[in-house]
Amino acid sequence: MNGADSLCDTLLANDVDVCFANPGTSEMHFVAALDKKPQMRCILGLFEGVVTGAADGYARMADKPAATLLHLGPGLANGLANIHNARRANTPMVNIVGDHAAYHLQYDAPLTSDIESLARPMSDWVHRIQSAADVSPAAAAAIQASRSGPGGIATLILPADAAWTEAPATIQRATDPELAPVQDDALRAAGAALRNGRKTVILLSGKALRGEALDTASRIAVKTGARLMAQQSNGRVERGAGRVMIDRVPFSVDLALKTFEDTEQLILVGAKTPVAFFAYPGKPGVLVPAACDIIPLTGPDNDVAQALQALAEAVGADHTVAPLTSQRTATQLPSGALNAAAIIQAIGVLSPENAIICDESVSSGRDSFKSTFGAAPHDFLQITGGAIGIGIPLATGAAVACPDRKVILMQADGSGMYTLQALWTQAREQLDVVTIIFANRSYAILHNELKMVGAGEPGRNARRMLDLDNPTFDWVHMAKASGVEAARATDAESFIDVLRSALARKGPFLIEAVI
Amino acid sequence: MNGADSLCDTLLANDVDVCFANPGTSEMHFVAALDKKPQMRCILGLFEGVVTGAADGYARMADKPAATLLHLGPGLANGLANIHNARRANTPMVNIVGDHAAYHLQYDAPLTSDIESLARPMSDWVHRIQSAADVSPAAAAAIQASRSGPGGIATLILPADAAWTEAPATIQRATDPELAPVQDDALRAAGAALRNGRKTVILLSGKALRGEALDTASRIAVKTGARLMAQQSNGRVERGAGRVMIDRVPFSVDLALKTFEDTEQLILVGAKTPVAFFAYPGKPGVLVPAACDIIPLTGPDNDVAQALQALAEAVGADHTVAPLTSQRTATQLPSGALNAAAIIQAIGVLSPENAIICDESVSSGRDSFKSTFGAAPHDFLQITGGAIGIGIPLATGAAVACPDRKVILMQADGSGMYTLQALWTQAREQLDVVTIIFANRSYAILHNELKMVGAGEPGRNARRMLDLDNPTFDWVHMAKASGVEAARATDAESFIDVLRSALARKGPFLIEAVI
Repeated sequence: MNGADSLCDTLLANDVDVCFANPGTSEMHFVAALDKKPQMRCILGLFEGVVTGAADGYARMADKPAATLLHLGPGLANGLANIHNARRANTPMVNIVGDHAAYHLQYDAPLTSDIESLARPMSDWVHRIQSAADVSPAAAAAIQASRSGPGGIATLILPADAAWTEAPATIQRATDPELAPVQDDALRAAGAALRNGRKTVILLSGKALRGEALDTASRIAVKTGARLMAQQSNGRVERGAGRVMIDRVPFSVDLALKTFEDTEQLILVGAKTPVAFFAYPGKPGVLVPAACDIIPLTGPDNDVAQALQALAEAVGADHTVAPLTSQRTATQLPSGALNAAAIIQAIGVLSPENAIICDESVSSGRDSFKSTFGAAPHDFLQITGGAIGIGIPLATGAAVACPDRKVILMQADGSGMYTLQALWTQAREQLDVVTIIFANRSYAILHNELKMVGAGEPGRNARRMLDLDNPTFDWVHMAKASGVEAARATDAESFIDVLRSALARKGPFLIEAVI
Repeated sequence: MNGADSLCDTLLANDVDVCFANPGTSEMHFVAALDKKPQMRCILGLFEGVVTGAADGYARMADKPAATLLHLGPGLANGLANIHNARRANTPMVNIVGDHAAYHLQYDAPLTSDIESLARPMSDWVHRIQSAADVSPAAAAAIQASRSGPGGIATLILPADAAWTEAPATIQRATDPELAPVQDDALRAAGAALRNGRKTVILLSGKALRGEALDTASRIAVKTGARLMAQQSNGRVERGAGRVMIDRVPFSVDLALKTFEDTEQLILVGAKTPVAFFAYPGKPGVLVPAACDIIPLTGPDNDVAQALQALAEAVGADHTVAPLTSQRTATQLPSGALNAAAIIQAIGVLSPENAIICDESVSSGRDSFKSTFGAAPHDFLQITGGAIGIGIPLATGAAVACPDRKVILMQADGSGMYTLQALWTQAREQLDVVTIIFANRSYAILHNELKMVGAGEPGRNARRMLDLDNPTFDWVHMAKASGVEAARATDAESFIDVLRSALARKGPFLIEAVI
């Protein structure tokens, strides 16, 4: 076996059996190795941002890493924006980046670049394989790094000669990750805070937004009178009717300040102190009042579920306390003009049980949480790092992980343009994704931001940079180009009709919702 | 005036008057500044790889830098692959990357990343603006850096607060670049080599492949019996009927070794010693024989035209010596089956005088030089750094720089998928580009490379990673989605018909040539 075989075997031995790929010449030995192993599912993306965004969506739902296969520095660079998002979601991911043979780097051939420098800003762990013998230990270490803490980005650089050289047959195994329990003093501090009568918010993120942990958090809030909130961006939230009702920190600085204006204590559970997404002249960066006490119960690196359970015991929030759950309220369909609110309202009513709702609707979907509290129970995946172009790949990966569940993507048109190549992957893999394009034909968020700058009415240059019209992009044609069936809707009734039929069938479908 | 106004004024004062842009919130003050200056042409790309690739094509033809406007680390990352190509072409480019306000970085808001680490591998010069007062000096330094030597990548990080803070009214000017003349000992060595009777290749790149410099090089070759060659990849070559006939180093290692097998001396003029694009087991990295003397006349940083003129004088290659030029031989149109050779043959016959031919045809176009020696005189722009996804943006930028010339793009389908968003920019700006998609529905180059690995017939996993079928992507639908007229051709006759009519009209047109 050569180094490439050793890498493939190490991935499989450690339960990494999906590889989102866009290979090049320097990865050909690895392609040949993958070709010998039908138990590895290889999924081609026609651009690397598709590959990494899909790996993110996959891992958020599968709770284990996928591998990505990328071609040297530029291939990695193309995938970085969605690696950035994945890192902000604490997604486990193992990136395999092919490079020139080690002895070839001295020649500075055209595709040569400093891969480590590119990888580090978006990776938690980076390693360049030193030899064929280093392949299996390095791959096991990468998998372990990707699984450590809440999950992280491991980037493994594979020189071509390490791939093609004879390697030892020993395959390394990553050890199972261990999450540290909550620290006693943090537990005591949070418990005391919940008993002192001050106005308290418990801010959750990561695994605290799922299943039993979220129930426990809600019981704590109900028992102590604290308010439960989710971070503005989270990798995955389990929500909908019958599940814990939890709102998230608003994106708007003014709304977020209002949300926290009377908050005296903030208990962090896998979350960070909320800060403004962007700085604005004269507005604060931290969104809680200066006098608010910040009490970290546990960061994302610890066992969040255990920490919440311990806190529940400390405050007496046992199973006799019922969590605050959402009711099945989303039953009224919209009518008349089609706009973002109507689309989201319709999704709230029609999305089936156990759907996966992905959200890159940006400005259009800011208020979507309200309309979907009462939707059928679902997982909610959103853009986490602000790097647009995640939506279509994210939905693609989630559908690979969960072939029996319907994936619904709320996709802004401007952001969707970034990685529209993922539609082709959905067609090829026949993934069960309904993509809903919020076609407002502009970077609406930026029009709003420009207003806030006080620039007045936008002139020609500003409009040329913020509007997506002249020509408008035709998403129905684009979907058909990719082998995905599609339709356009321009009022609520036609949107509902199309959405109903898209949800009733299997396989990818795109709706261009003109708003 | 604020820092953003100061930046805009500094660009304009230094003749940088085209800005390829994909802005975000942190760049809104700069957008507002650009909006006040109609003399700045702002061109939106719906993905950053479009923005940077277009800036490359523009600068190769305009011989001056464009600005790019990119949104934080992920926006820069999306543009890096084509910045990599531009750097390998020695293209002048000024990248303006917005970042958070300096005081906001401490909060590690979701879009925060280490922009410098991302920028450095693909930049010749990187600077983070320190204050509003630093904006104009820094921008002038960036422009100067982009123009120094043969041209380079300057990346300027603009914190939002430096943009929105009041700035001094003084606008800095970059000094004109100066190219050093050839060094005496290098000139003597090259002159001596050309007189010693040994088999000599003069290898050219950069400005040596244009106009007077190229004529001079050819006269030297004719006079001394040396062979003239161009580097494998070059930013721009002036060629075609009536111009100097010069072949380039083949991509294939075996063919390149054959080309140089009897070469005893290699004189470098703005070029590098030729090396293999990739390493292969058992094959050499350097493509000239070990015994071949390498004689650098001048690197790309020096005045290449002056160096060639001095060498011509040294060897007596004056204007009585005629350069070896191509004849107008491309007159025979193909017929029958459509394949890459037929497409290129037709382009050779039909491309109009003074066209700009861009090439990202990858494996399909490897032999295209032969068929176009005798085409009408044209500029030839190619992918230089091996980072695929340059073609459609490159053609877009070239058309912006030269609105009165026809741009013809030879585009491989797999590579074209990377940055197909550039078609929309062509439609919006009504650019005169004919895009010819070589639709072989596979990463054909990789099939070939896989064969060379000795992996035998590709199995399911390999085919799933190397084939672009099931479904085939429909480029005609895609072009129409973007507002670009398009047609499909499946035999030589229909291809010729469509190409003729596309060349006869103004504005963007796409031909899907199924091969």
